[in-house]
Amino acid sequence: MRAGRPILQYVDRPGVLDLGWGHPHPSLLPTDAWAAAMSAALGTYGWQALTYGYEAGPGPLREWIAGHLATTDGGGEPDEIFVTAGASHALTLVCATLARPGDVVLVDSPTYHLAFGILWDQGVEVIAASVDDGGLDPHALDEQIAALRRRGRRVPLLYIVPTFGNPTGHSLPDDRRRELVAVAHRADLTIVEDDTYRDMVYDGAAPPSLWRLGDGEAVVRIGSFAKTVAPGLRLGWIQASPDLIGRLARLGYVHSGGGVNHTAALTMAAFGASGAYREHLNAVRREYAIRRDTLLATLRRLPVRLDVPSPAGGWFVWLPLPAGRPAANVLVTAEEHGVSFMPGSTFHVDGADDDHIRLSFSLLAPAELEEAAQRLGIALAETL
Amino acid sequence: MRAGRPILQYVDRPGVLDLGWGHPHPSLLPTDAWAAAMSAALGTYGWQALTYGYEAGPGPLREWIAGHLATTDGGGEPDEIFVTAGASHALTLVCATLARPGDVVLVDSPTYHLAFGILWDQGVEVIAASVDDGGLDPHALDEQIAALRRRGRRVPLLYIVPTFGNPTGHSLPDDRRRELVAVAHRADLTIVEDDTYRDMVYDGAAPPSLWRLGDGEAVVRIGSFAKTVAPGLRLGWIQASPDLIGRLARLGYVHSGGGVNHTAALTMAAFGASGAYREHLNAVRREYAIRRDTLLATLRRLPVRLDVPSPAGGWFVWLPLPAGRPAANVLVTAEEHGVSFMPGSTFHVDGADDDHIRLSFSLLAPAELEEAAQRLGIALAETL
Repeated sequence: MRAGRPILQYVDRPGVLDLGWGHPHPSLLPTDAWAAAMSAALGTYGWQALTYGYEAGPGPLREWIAGHLATTDGGGEPDEIFVTAGASHALTLVCATLARPGDVVLVDSPTYHLAFGILWDQGVEVIAASVDDGGLDPHALDEQIAALRRRGRRVPLLYIVPTFGNPTGHSLPDDRRRELVAVAHRADLTIVEDDTYRDMVYDGAAPPSLWRLGDGEAVVRIGSFAKTVAPGLRLGWIQASPDLIGRLARLGYVHSGGGVNHTAALTMAAFGASGAYREHLNAVRREYAIRRDTLLATLRRLPVRLDVPSPAGGWFVWLPLPAGRPAANVLVTAEEHGVSFMPGSTFHVDGADDDHIRLSFSLLAPAELEEAAQRLGIALAETL
Repeated sequence: MRAGRPILQYVDRPGVLDLGWGHPHPSLLPTDAWAAAMSAALGTYGWQALTYGYEAGPGPLREWIAGHLATTDGGGEPDEIFVTAGASHALTLVCATLARPGDVVLVDSPTYHLAFGILWDQGVEVIAASVDDGGLDPHALDEQIAALRRRGRRVPLLYIVPTFGNPTGHSLPDDRRRELVAVAHRADLTIVEDDTYRDMVYDGAAPPSLWRLGDGEAVVRIGSFAKTVAPGLRLGWIQASPDLIGRLARLGYVHSGGGVNHTAALTMAAFGASGAYREHLNAVRREYAIRRDTLLATLRRLPVRLDVPSPAGGWFVWLPLPAGRPAANVLVTAEEHGVSFMPGSTFHVDGADDDHIRLSFSLLAPAELEEAAQRLGIALAETL
């Protein structure tokens, strides 16, 4: 049944334990529960699950998302929700709607590297926002925007993953969140808050979203079911003012298609309403926490001295390398020892940063993570 | 379980038999068969059905589509296929890739009205191509393109639904197909052939596609499972040169998402492989043919004399109105009598055409179509 042409994006490299992929472990995908949700959706909604859907997304899912956000981040209104075909599609739509070719879109640095291509495809220039060791620096950002505008540039958007971010696993501190939202208000900037990892929290509670701090002004939030349920569904959402939701719903292709992923959206509504989401999320959170702990513990036991961070959520460890061991060199040695990762430069739009590497603990099993970290330790010791 | 907010695009208007909607009849959507296909896909592919997919679409569906096209239109190669989230999404991607803001995109006239908004969203100018009573006129088109280019305009694309087209149900005659492809070759124009209705054929065989006549040059073909299976799936395809398929697969958001609708695509592969597609298509073709025949027969029995066409496929009847009865006036009277339709002007980008109306026979049951046509007959008789 396996066909000649690829089914998946993932490319298996025999002998290599690859910490580079931000993909879920196969055992943590809800195959049985999703089949049950599809049956439930077709049972509950019948033909309505298969025909042209409401443009902003079917009511039951918009209402479930709003209700779920009330339990994780202080609430949301269904009329603020637009159902998308994933967070990357959400970013495409927001950029196409709020920016014009030639505009500057600022991005956190480091940040989700595949956002760069999404933004470039819209014809905008992508520039790293001002950051320091604590992450995005709101005051420096304020000056950066002013300087760009003095040079005649339009700067409508800033993209950031402030909570358990990719690639760092860090969250922007609360005081900077408040300052950032205030700067956005003052500077007439829209923050695109990629909140993909909010539910993937292992220690304590996730910080308040920028959306919540902004009271629905100056922030557009995007979310995804790719990490919490399954990436193949292509299902995510935008939370924004009802005015922007209306503009998105009137896009030609959204109107023509009756929403962008109607059947999957109603299936997700059934998956949520049955309690399967809560149950699955609890299970995968437990498993990803075990994987994180295994990777961190093994890294800390390595002979080579590392400053290992402790991400409280997400899928990634952003590892500072020991002095004198640039990521590009470590990668070569690591591959010789059967382990791989993403060098830090990948996550900077200007390509700078040879001091960090991103290790993903989502795709490998705990025993593989332990072995991968040990191989990395050997590679680090051998790298000149 | 029915929530307060809308689930569907369709708006029910009690007392009105609405021939305006190009939506499928609820009984003709494969609710049970789709649930079975989802179970089969999750059984066959397991977790692979839920994770990040191959960017151009999963191999099994690309191979099934190519094989299916071999039975309906002389073949296709899997490497020519890119899986999309519907035909409207396909048009969005093709226009975004092959046209630039400010370009002219020519469209057949009349044509699928929601294509206008899709194209406008890409910042292009949409202009009606030269047509006569036989449809698109290749020789006049040739001159039209030359005239536009003499005025400094870029004209990269022409959009057309040449087979059982929306709204006319007509197909472009074979000689014009060949001439059109020759003009495109000569003028370095890419024809976007919307082949959504090819499988929805009731009499004889569908004409050869422009894609086939062009030998893979000068034509990009787009297709959809919205009419043959279900619109809510958001599943379609692009057939193009492997070079263009590669460009589409490298789009930022396609790469980020692992294709644009992976789980639905593998479910469709299972739906195809099991024979469910063939079985369902045969059933709905039979049913839509009965609906077409009912509508046509009733229209021909009306006291008012009408020049009723005989579409050999598709979902629409493009009805010329008797002289002196403009569509806008007929619509007002029709609504008073509990029947509605789409006026012909909707399908022209310049809004001209008060002489035709589009009647869709897809959404209503045969008895409703009979009643709707009778009400229309009364309205026509009463319209001044």
